[in-house]
Amino acid sequence: MIIGKVVGSIFSTRKSEKLVGNKFMIVRPEESMRADGNDLVAIDIIGAGIGEKVLVAQGSAARIGCDMKDAPVDAAIVGIIDEGQEFTDQ
Amino acid sequence: MIIGKVVGSIFSTRKSEKLVGNKFMIVRPEESMRADGNDLVAIDIIGAGIGEKVLVAQGSAARIGCDMKDAPVDAAIVGIIDEGQEFTDQ
Amino acid sequence: MIIGKVVGSIFSTRKSEKLVGNKFMIVRPEESMRADGNDLVAIDIIGAGIGEKVLVAQGSAARIGCDMKDAPVDAAIVGIIDEGQEFTDQ
Amino acid sequence: MIIGKVVGSIFSTRKSEKLVGNKFMIVRPEESMRADGNDLVAIDIIGAGIGEKVLVAQGSAARIGCDMKDAPVDAAIVGIIDEGQEFTDQ
Amino acid sequence: MIIGKVVGSIFSTRKSEKLVGNKFMIVRPEESMRADGNDLVAIDIIGAGIGEKVLVAQGSAARIGCDMKDAPVDAAIVGIIDEGQEFTDQ
Repeated sequence: MIIGKVVGSIFSTRKSEKLVGNKFMIVRPEESMRADGNDLVAIDIIGAGIGEKVLVAQGSAARIGCDMKDAPVDAAIVGIIDEGQEFTDQ
Repeated sequence: MIIGKVVGSIFSTRKSEKLVGNKFMIVRPEESMRADGNDLVAIDIIGAGIGEKVLVAQGSAARIGCDMKDAPVDAAIVGIIDEGQEFTDQ
Repeated sequence: MIIGKVVGSIFSTRKSEKLVGNKFMIVRPEESMRADGNDLVAIDIIGAGIGEKVLVAQGSAARIGCDMKDAPVDAAIVGIIDEGQEFTDQ
Repeated sequence: MIIGKVVGSIFSTRKSEKLVGNKFMIVRPEESMRADGNDLVAIDIIGAGIGEKVLVAQGSAARIGCDMKDAPVDAAIVGIIDEGQEFTDQ
Repeated sequence: MIIGKVVGSIFSTRKSEKLVGNKFMIVRPEESMRADGNDLVAIDIIGAGIGEKVLVAQGSAARIGCDMKDAPVDAAIVGIIDEGQEFTDQ
C-alpha cells in the first residue's frame, strides 16, 4: 500500500455501469512514496476528504478487497492515517 | 486508475481471436500521472473519441471489470471525465 | 497493453515444463511507451517476426488470455500492428 | 520480492474492517532494489521490528499468500533476512 | 518476463511457513531490461547458480505458474538462458 494525500476528485457521467455510485478521488503519494508524475485515481470506501492523508491499496487488492470483484477498479482508499501517528525512523 | 487523453488508435488484423471486435486506443496519461514514455494502449468500452479525457483501469481490473475474463487485455477506458469537473487542490 | 518492436529472441533448454513449446521474443516498447531499460521477454501466440511491431499484454492477462492459466508467463504478443495504420494525434 | 528495512509504522483508526488487527509497517527497499520515492506500506505477518531487514511480497501474492484473500492488502512482510547471511556477487 | 543474472542469495529463518523449502536468489535484470535500483528476489524452481543468466516471471504468474498458488511469492526463476543463444537485432 502507499500513503498519499487526497488532492482532488473527478466526475464521470459516461462510465462503466459497474462504477456507478463510487467517488473517484485524486491521490498524490507522499514524498517518500512517489516518483514524478504518479498521482492516481482511487475509489473511496472510507469517506476521505480533500487534504486527508490516506492509505491506498492497488491492483486486485482494491477490487476484491473492497467487495467490487467485477468492477474495473485498480486502486482504493482503504484507510485514513491517524494524525500525528505516523512514525518514521529517518 | 489514471486520467489520460486519447491521442490515437491502432489497428491489428492478425491478433488473438479473443480481441476481435475491440477498439484499441492510445492513451497519454495526464501530466501529474505520467513519467516519460508511459503512453499505453487500452480497449475502449465507453466509446471515447480522439482528444477526450478518460479514466483508465489497468491490470486484472480491465479484463475482469469489462467482462472479458478470458481475453489478453490489461488496460481499458472505463469512463469519460466530465468537462470542467476535475478538481485538484494544488 | 503496449506497442513494441520485436528485437530478438531467446532460447532456454532448462526451463519450467509448462513453458515447453513456446517462443520467447524480446520486445522493445516504442518510444512513447518506454522508459530507459524496459525491454521485456514475451511469449508469442501470433507468429511475429524480428522487426515487426506488435501489441503486448502484460500481467495475468498474458497468462489467462493466452490459455496458459497455469504457466509462469507474464507477457505475451497478442497482435501485430497493421502497417501504416497507427494514428496518433499528439 | 524485494528486500527492505522497516523504517516506521502507521496507525489508521478509520479503515476497511477487513484490515482490523493488522500492523502496517513502512518499508524502505534497499539501495539495489529501489528507485527514488518508493517506500511502501506492508502488513506484517512475521513480527518484524523497526530497523529489521525484511523480505516483502507484493501484489496478489501478499493478499492470497497471507491468508487474507478478501482484504485490500497489496504488500506484506513475509520473512526476516538472516543477519550476515545475504550474499551478493558484485 | 525479464532476463537477469543471479548475483546472490538470501536466507530467512523467520519466514512465512508457506515459503519453507524455497531458495531465494537475488537477480539483477540485464542492462536493456533494468532501470536504476531494480534488483529483485526470486524463488528458484530450476536450480540456477550464481552468475547464470535466467528468465524471471513476475506477479501472479510466479505464484500460480510454479505450483505455489497459496504462497506469498511474486517472482520466480523459470528458465536458464542458453549460452550464446540470445539474439538481439540492435
